[in-house]
Amino acid sequence: MKKACVLLAPGCEEMEAVIVIDVLRRGGIEVVSAGLQSGVFEASRGVRLEADVSLDDLVGAKDFDLLVLPGGLPGTEALRDDVRVRDLLLHYVQTTGKRVGVLCAASLVLDAHGLLEGRKFTCYPGVAPDIQGGTWVDERVVIDGNLTTSQGPGTAMAFALELVKQLAGVETRMDVAEGLLFE
Amino acid sequence: MKKACVLLAPGCEEMEAVIVIDVLRRGGIEVVSAGLQSGVFEASRGVRLEADVSLDDLVGAKDFDLLVLPGGLPGTEALRDDVRVRDLLLHYVQTTGKRVGVLCAASLVLDAHGLLEGRKFTCYPGVAPDIQGGTWVDERVVIDGNLTTSQGPGTAMAFALELVKQLAGVETRMDVAEGLLFE
Repeated sequence: MKKACVLLAPGCEEMEAVIVIDVLRRGGIEVVSAGLQSGVFEASRGVRLEADVSLDDLVGAKDFDLLVLPGGLPGTEALRDDVRVRDLLLHYVQTTGKRVGVLCAASLVLDAHGLLEGRKFTCYPGVAPDIQGGTWVDERVVIDGNLTTSQGPGTAMAFALELVKQLAGVETRMDVAEGLLFE
Repeated sequence: MKKACVLLAPGCEEMEAVIVIDVLRRGGIEVVSAGLQSGVFEASRGVRLEADVSLDDLVGAKDFDLLVLPGGLPGTEALRDDVRVRDLLLHYVQTTGKRVGVLCAASLVLDAHGLLEGRKFTCYPGVAPDIQGGTWVDERVVIDGNLTTSQGPGTAMAFALELVKQLAGVETRMDVAEGLLFE
């Protein structure tokens, strides 16, 4: 079974986080949500979430098949400023070339660590002017090698389904989309 | 400011619950999530959520402009079997005619209390054969007077935006949809 880790920061966009976790699990992917801190936290619109485990207690953080960063503010800033997240991103994006999925404002985190250089990507359109590296593409989901990016809450389900396709195949992706009544 | 209450049961569909709360708040609506129990609970795909308040501690439960029931199993069964939820539904749907929004499998809750009689409604298509009352309509969002129903996770954002329109007007609905990158 493929395994994915979804990083959860206080102030993350709760729809983006929950859609990704839920849809990946519907696709038969083992998902661990890892919080920057332990305990219940507030997401960007005040929904209270608790991660499966705190990042400090996460065993095998570098052993997942996919690492996902939801967007939202101020969650994205917390991810950007966290040295553990930086180290994980360098490992997944650069060292190993494993899959990484990044939603909405969270492309800022990749950019802060120079990881968009030479890559095609997308992000929340309002955030695009703040990004220095890479080539922004105005599409709802953009795939460049091991890096999949997407634009925002309204594209989160399509993004999650694309990740299901990458990890579990196109038929599973179609089954999950049908169950969701996605169109 | 208009006020909405979203009922959260263990085993509710976490995308449906979170999309409704988040989108209504983006529309400037004051949202209180009320849990059948206090503390952190697991939603249908294992996401851990905590409501703003437990239903027992909710002040003014009958004073909201809108009551929303997300779907998901077994959350829907918990809502159906809860006498506090039954009393609230009777108050909102029947006694006062205030707005009620019901997603996915949760139309079963209305049906269990005879509240679909003479109404047009929709629900998750797989659940429709189990519903006795009312007239099922195969549309993503169905409005019948004070009752708005919708089909599932993939229709939750359209459903939430319809509720924003009803409480905050069409322009606010358009602004929120644009911010979400909804299409």
